[in-house]
Amino acid sequence: MDFPMGYLFRGLNDDQLKRIEAVDREVSMENGQKICREGEEAKDLYILKTGAVELITKVENDVELPITVLRNLGDIFGSGVLIAPYTYNLTARCTETGTLLRIEGSALQKLMMEDRDLGCTIMTNLAEQFLIRLKESRQEIKMHFNALLRSYR
Amino acid sequence: MDFPMGYLFRGLNDDQLKRIEAVDREVSMENGQKICREGEEAKDLYILKTGAVELITKVENDVELPITVLRNLGDIFGSGVLIAPYTYNLTARCTETGTLLRIEGSALQKLMMEDRDLGCTIMTNLAEQFLIRLKESRQEIKMHFNALLRSYR
Repeated sequence: MDFPMGYLFRGLNDDQLKRIEAVDREVSMENGQKICREGEEAKDLYILKTGAVELITKVENDVELPITVLRNLGDIFGSGVLIAPYTYNLTARCTETGTLLRIEGSALQKLMMEDRDLGCTIMTNLAEQFLIRLKESRQEIKMHFNALLRSYR
Repeated sequence: MDFPMGYLFRGLNDDQLKRIEAVDREVSMENGQKICREGEEAKDLYILKTGAVELITKVENDVELPITVLRNLGDIFGSGVLIAPYTYNLTARCTETGTLLRIEGSALQKLMMEDRDLGCTIMTNLAEQFLIRLKESRQEIKMHFNALLRSYR
């Protein structure tokens, strides 16, 4: 298998990975290109092959808050395609020209319905990933809270 | 069915809910009682029947940061029992004497393995819930970020 393993696909067997590989499509991206926008309907899941992608969120007055930069083979974004309300949770912008694998959400959902083991594994991986990010966010809130506490001492 | 429907069980049919009900056990809680502690091994999932439970997280120097108060029939905590690293994500303390339904994590995992549809539904609900909380946390971080921006203007 030369399918780039992202967190979503951990625990799948070769046969299941082949079925996912069969519905992906390689696309190129150019430095500066917006690949998906926060809040818009999520149609595709993306897996990084080469290059780099920055994930950002808008704060007030169009100021952008960077969340992370994806640079590793198998890094995934667009997971909003798997979960209600089926919108992109962040904006993704290419910061280094490269290639992505694009998987249509509807094709992936179909594979997950046909093979409930595959579906269960992917949803478990997704929940695990959200939990990791939730803990990171809470850690950041704690830092702000601690700074506030210190300012009152 | 008089099983209190929490977010985890949405989309399950009566037969599936009956199987979950068969493994729950009603327990009482007293005002002030700690029900589970952040970071400890998660063994049980809890569903609120009556009373109230405060969810909290520790910041530095044993200062507690309140996250939310659960007061509604069917409110769930202890979801760390369903996902790696299988630890409680928050501390839960009873703030109003009442009753809980307690479900052993191992019993629930067994039901989820035996019925992959049930497993997939619960993991999807869990991922959805984590995403909601992640968005709330990011919103809070944005507020801090905006306050910081304004202080520099």
